[in-house]
Amino acid sequence: MSEYLIPRKNNEKILFIVLDGAGDRPAPRTPLQAAKKPNLDALAARSACGLLHPMAPGIRPGSGVAHLSIFGYAPSDYPGRGVIEALGSGVALAPGDGAVRCNFAVKRNGVITDRRAGRIGDAEARTLAEMINAELGTKRLSFVHVKEHRCAIVLRGIGACNISDSDPEREGSAPQPIRALDGESKDAAKTVARFIGDAERLLQDSAANAILTRGSGAYKRIDGFAERYLLNAACVAGYPQYRGVGRYLGMKIIECSDDELGEKGIAERFDKAIAALHSSDFVYMHLKALDEFGEDGDWERKRKYIEIYDRHFAKLRGIGAFVVVTSDHSTPASLRSHSGDAVPIMISGRGVRCGGVKRFDEISCSSGTLGHIRGADVMPLLLDIADKVKKYKA
Amino acid sequence: MSEYLIPRKNNEKILFIVLDGAGDRPAPRTPLQAAKKPNLDALAARSACGLLHPMAPGIRPGSGVAHLSIFGYAPSDYPGRGVIEALGSGVALAPGDGAVRCNFAVKRNGVITDRRAGRIGDAEARTLAEMINAELGTKRLSFVHVKEHRCAIVLRGIGACNISDSDPEREGSAPQPIRALDGESKDAAKTVARFIGDAERLLQDSAANAILTRGSGAYKRIDGFAERYLLNAACVAGYPQYRGVGRYLGMKIIECSDDELGEKGIAERFDKAIAALHSSDFVYMHLKALDEFGEDGDWERKRKYIEIYDRHFAKLRGIGAFVVVTSDHSTPASLRSHSGDAVPIMISGRGVRCGGVKRFDEISCSSGTLGHIRGADVMPLLLDIADKVKKYKA
Repeated sequence: MSEYLIPRKNNEKILFIVLDGAGDRPAPRTPLQAAKKPNLDALAARSACGLLHPMAPGIRPGSGVAHLSIFGYAPSDYPGRGVIEALGSGVALAPGDGAVRCNFAVKRNGVITDRRAGRIGDAEARTLAEMINAELGTKRLSFVHVKEHRCAIVLRGIGACNISDSDPEREGSAPQPIRALDGESKDAAKTVARFIGDAERLLQDSAANAILTRGSGAYKRIDGFAERYLLNAACVAGYPQYRGVGRYLGMKIIECSDDELGEKGIAERFDKAIAALHSSDFVYMHLKALDEFGEDGDWERKRKYIEIYDRHFAKLRGIGAFVVVTSDHSTPASLRSHSGDAVPIMISGRGVRCGGVKRFDEISCSSGTLGHIRGADVMPLLLDIADKVKKYKA
Repeated sequence: MSEYLIPRKNNEKILFIVLDGAGDRPAPRTPLQAAKKPNLDALAARSACGLLHPMAPGIRPGSGVAHLSIFGYAPSDYPGRGVIEALGSGVALAPGDGAVRCNFAVKRNGVITDRRAGRIGDAEARTLAEMINAELGTKRLSFVHVKEHRCAIVLRGIGACNISDSDPEREGSAPQPIRALDGESKDAAKTVARFIGDAERLLQDSAANAILTRGSGAYKRIDGFAERYLLNAACVAGYPQYRGVGRYLGMKIIECSDDELGEKGIAERFDKAIAALHSSDFVYMHLKALDEFGEDGDWERKRKYIEIYDRHFAKLRGIGAFVVVTSDHSTPASLRSHSGDAVPIMISGRGVRCGGVKRFDEISCSSGTLGHIRGADVMPLLLDIADKVKKYKA
């Protein structure tokens, strides 16, 4: 329906908060149902509430493609996690550049014994990456550190970069051979496989002695928020993946610490997001912790962090912006993984249709006035409520 | 989904009432929430209720394309407002004929000082239009009066007629040059621009001394209600635009006065619509006033007219038809324009699933048994409840 969305500029501000992986399944209650969260619930009472299928009912998305979907982009616009993380790490990519996401790992007798190299620290990993890049980097290939055990291979002007992952996804298995997944990516597969072999020879005496690849893709230019929505947008996120989403969509990246768990890091995100509203029409703010606790199967910590987040939501009273709170997908603790369950969404601001929902959770929001919507509906609904659209076929 | 809809004829009658622009935003209540409307609310209690996105969530449609959407037609079926208003004014169009909607206006020193020529009366405007047509009309071009300050240029056999508007949309600006918006419409643009110049020379001593164009298109034949739904349909509407929608869809036009505000004019519409059910399977009845009050920012008058309309709804008890009440779009008084907010819809008649909704408004209907539907869903739901469809893949 995007051809029917005709944006126009005005002075209204939008704060869009993604509680990554917040949705859950009742056990017997969900963390959102169980948490004491007076501020989120008060916000729900003055919001239009609903449930959001990030892609479509039952579809279980990765975080990157889920974010694109709720920002109004098609799955085919997703350039692959390698590209997103490279962008989020500050790597400049031009159309046709390829990027491959990597982990430092530990290999013994040809078998991966630690897929994350003991969650190697930033300083050590950066030193290793710089050493490898100094030895093996060329005009066509560079190797960059991203965060902790994560790195990226950048292939300049490769054109296509759709290759299989070497990561066996569990410890005790050998790395998988890297293969081209289409006819045009043979050069990328061969280049990456040769690079990994060479790099692992350089790493043979290091604690991290292997590099696993997971996620590849080639960068392409798409219409960002400025072009598609006439929104001057900013991104407040600690993780490279989410900064990468923001950068891919043309948002200004607001630097912030990678502290997702400390009160200070959480406060920093709220403060910087609120401050960014002065110079931006749209601010996307990302909070990561709930997703991690879901993946860890830690229902209780998920509940606890909702309560911690809730205290910071008090700061949003009176900021004079439309505020959206939602999630990119559910990460049920019982599943220890993403699920396709719908997530709650609420939109507050002048003129929204409040409908008696008093709590921000998966069950309460299912009877809200927004109904049950899909990712592709979010931006049209939001731009309409903020009066940032023109009539189609006046 | 229309390929799965296989219509069949029966004797059931459907009355389809469009309260133009009825939907609103809470301020703190909507006019529909605030109005005392015992008859509409009693009808809601015996209806299946829901919310309707006329096109899709958040999309802000013009009235014409919104009507087509809730009648089951695609935006690409919309032939442009020029064609719709010409049809609604009784102009006969053949495939390939173009139509351009015009206003009489006032120009001083090259600048438009009144876009509607003081809302010039019907008689005076008709006289001017007939004078111009007598002087400049040819086999290929005619100029016809529509209503008040509104006229239309008809271009016979032009083929394509996708041209820009000369209306600057505000007073104090000069008219815009008329340009072809596609390669095939160059002839139309040149012909219209030359005609406007010649006509304004004839008007130079008149109170209305300028003609502005807004909305163009070429007529095409589409399957109407008879072909698509096997419905013998009639249209009761005062405004040319809505009569034009009816005529475009092959409905019989029931003549009625243009009195949208008087009790007599409103009663006439209800009476003629109810009477038309004797000879028609489907009667579309249009009431315009709420949209105008929304555009005027007049929340209170919108509320008041809902109460006036409500008294007439008492006449619908016992008419033995399925009755649909809905709106083509919201026109929030706070916005003074159309919005993409969903509108309430209710369908009453034998066998509908009543679900405890007791009021016909935007909030109450959001929890009705119809759920939240889109324009394209309306006719399939309605034909199904009236048993006017066959099984798909029996």
